[in-house]
Amino acid sequence: MLRCILLSCSFLLMGNLLSAADPLSSWNETETKTKVMQFVGSITEEGGEQYVAPEDRIAVFDNDGTLWCEQPFYNQLAFALYRVHQLAPSHPEWNEKEPFRSVLNGDLKKVFASGEKGILALVAATHSGITETEFKNAVMDWTNHSEHPRFKRSYLECVYQPQLELLAYLRANGFKTYIVSGGGIDFMRPWTEEVYGIPPEQVVGSSSKSSYEVREGVGVIVKQPELNFFDDKDGKPVGIQQHIGKRPILAFGNSDGDFQMLEYTTTGDGPRLGLLVHHDDTEREYAYDRDSHIGQLARGLDEAKARGWVIVSMKNDWNEVFPAE
Amino acid sequence: MLRCILLSCSFLLMGNLLSAADPLSSWNETETKTKVMQFVGSITEEGGEQYVAPEDRIAVFDNDGTLWCEQPFYNQLAFALYRVHQLAPSHPEWNEKEPFRSVLNGDLKKVFASGEKGILALVAATHSGITETEFKNAVMDWTNHSEHPRFKRSYLECVYQPQLELLAYLRANGFKTYIVSGGGIDFMRPWTEEVYGIPPEQVVGSSSKSSYEVREGVGVIVKQPELNFFDDKDGKPVGIQQHIGKRPILAFGNSDGDFQMLEYTTTGDGPRLGLLVHHDDTEREYAYDRDSHIGQLARGLDEAKARGWVIVSMKNDWNEVFPAE
Ligand SMILES: [Ca+2]
Ligand SMILES: [Ca+2]
Repeated sequence: MLRCILLSCSFLLMGNLLSAADPLSSWNETETKTKVMQFVGSITEEGGEQYVAPEDRIAVFDNDGTLWCEQPFYNQLAFALYRVHQLAPSHPEWNEKEPFRSVLNGDLKKVFASGEKGILALVAATHSGITETEFKNAVMDWTNHSEHPRFKRSYLECVYQPQLELLAYLRANGFKTYIVSGGGIDFMRPWTEEVYGIPPEQVVGSSSKSSYEVREGVGVIVKQPELNFFDDKDGKPVGIQQHIGKRPILAFGNSDGDFQMLEYTTTGDGPRLGLLVHHDDTEREYAYDRDSHIGQLARGLDEAKARGWVIVSMKNDWNEVFPAE
Repeated sequence: MLRCILLSCSFLLMGNLLSAADPLSSWNETETKTKVMQFVGSITEEGGEQYVAPEDRIAVFDNDGTLWCEQPFYNQLAFALYRVHQLAPSHPEWNEKEPFRSVLNGDLKKVFASGEKGILALVAATHSGITETEFKNAVMDWTNHSEHPRFKRSYLECVYQPQLELLAYLRANGFKTYIVSGGGIDFMRPWTEEVYGIPPEQVVGSSSKSSYEVREGVGVIVKQPELNFFDDKDGKPVGIQQHIGKRPILAFGNSDGDFQMLEYTTTGDGPRLGLLVHHDDTEREYAYDRDSHIGQLARGLDEAKARGWVIVSMKNDWNEVFPAE
């Protein structure tokens, strides 16, 4: 028995030592980090003025450009291109049809010249007509057989190390962490649990219509080409209400597509925190804001101060960007 | 220290005694109860052949007629009628307009004679044009100031005691419990956590469209009169995919509106359980199935045996129906 007690004591001691380690070690000791830790400290202090009950500790994170790299173009588009190559053998007509033809010829410039209409045609053709399970397998196949053109590592390793730490830190403090992204919900769900610790039911995203069918005696969900919900801008608070049914107390984004999500989050009563990643790090990642073709951030920069939102400088606030290989 | 150890021992002992108490005491000792407990026992047995990891222990429950009473008409309609009376002073035109006029005159027969079109008009008029927070308050006001016409108790006390026990028992065994109902998602969320222990984010239901607006500087969600999603029949598996993103392993319903949900659940690989409440208890509740105006159950009765679904007899399998007052 005594041995057990001593063992218990040493476990307790180890626990204390571990918890004393910095949970946000990839964050520099800047004002940003202080603000985050003070916010979490204040809302978890039992009996404190700012205390928030665990069931209301809802944190929402945008994905592209907030949790993982979104340049030189959205990773989901890279997946669509990958899938065009994969599906091409059963679509001989694509050799004569734009923008599929240019995808197969590797002429990305021409693909982008096809504009939004062309991109949507690629997404519709590569994201529908299959069951959710087949689509999940297709996504995982892409993650296993493709890499980021600049960083030469799997796309799933182009996630931001400081954000992985922040997600874990929030959960350790009783938060429920959600993704609220303009990206496809079915494109994210297959890997968010493994990579971010966020299970499928805590992923909110854009979606296509889907239908229920029975195939060989098994009930399946089949993805349709029509858009069901676009989870961006005004759509983000609506998506949050649909999926979560509660106003979050913390929101983290990186572009003006997140403006309404941060506004919705931070205009509620009580303590609130809004944050925006500012991509200002050409060296380690990319630098873009007002004039970017994706992830444009202008109104957010203009209004952050007045609204009390925190602008997170990738360059100054993060000492690591990607996880060590 | 010794005292602590002795105290710990007695707590452990108490824990054992408590867990030895019957978690499903309102369920009679019938084959139904045995099947439920054997299923839960087998999927939680670590190292067992039927073991299911906690993250895949998803249980979905229909609401009307499965978790609470749905007769003599849907409780949500009772709420709509209540709200017509409440809103009438600012709608003088309702005195001349059917079916509002009949609602205000207390002529339910005439209200029902207005058919689906009339009922939908009542729902649209009473469920839209207000923010989610205002709607939530309206629902809670109704629950506090109305009672079931036959049972003379709050609608929130017309829930089934055996199901409250089952929900708690499943959660104690690592399940995540969800509602998947044809009823309005916003109508259920304000009270499901208190009554069923199911938080808002685990409620799936029918929904109206909604929009994001800024009112007096605060971001709010405003309910619109148009239908967004009808969570019934084929819609149930689709709603499950949208919200949960995983195939459940246990589904509990009471009508043919739940057929596809049970089919989707039970045609997956591995251990699965599908159950249907059969309302056969005129004495304590109601008896209805094939020819009922609501909660019709015909195909489910016909195919239950072949599909291995359990028909739960309210009369024989439950020794209590409602919670003690
Ligand atoms: Ca973004
Ligand atoms: Ca029902």
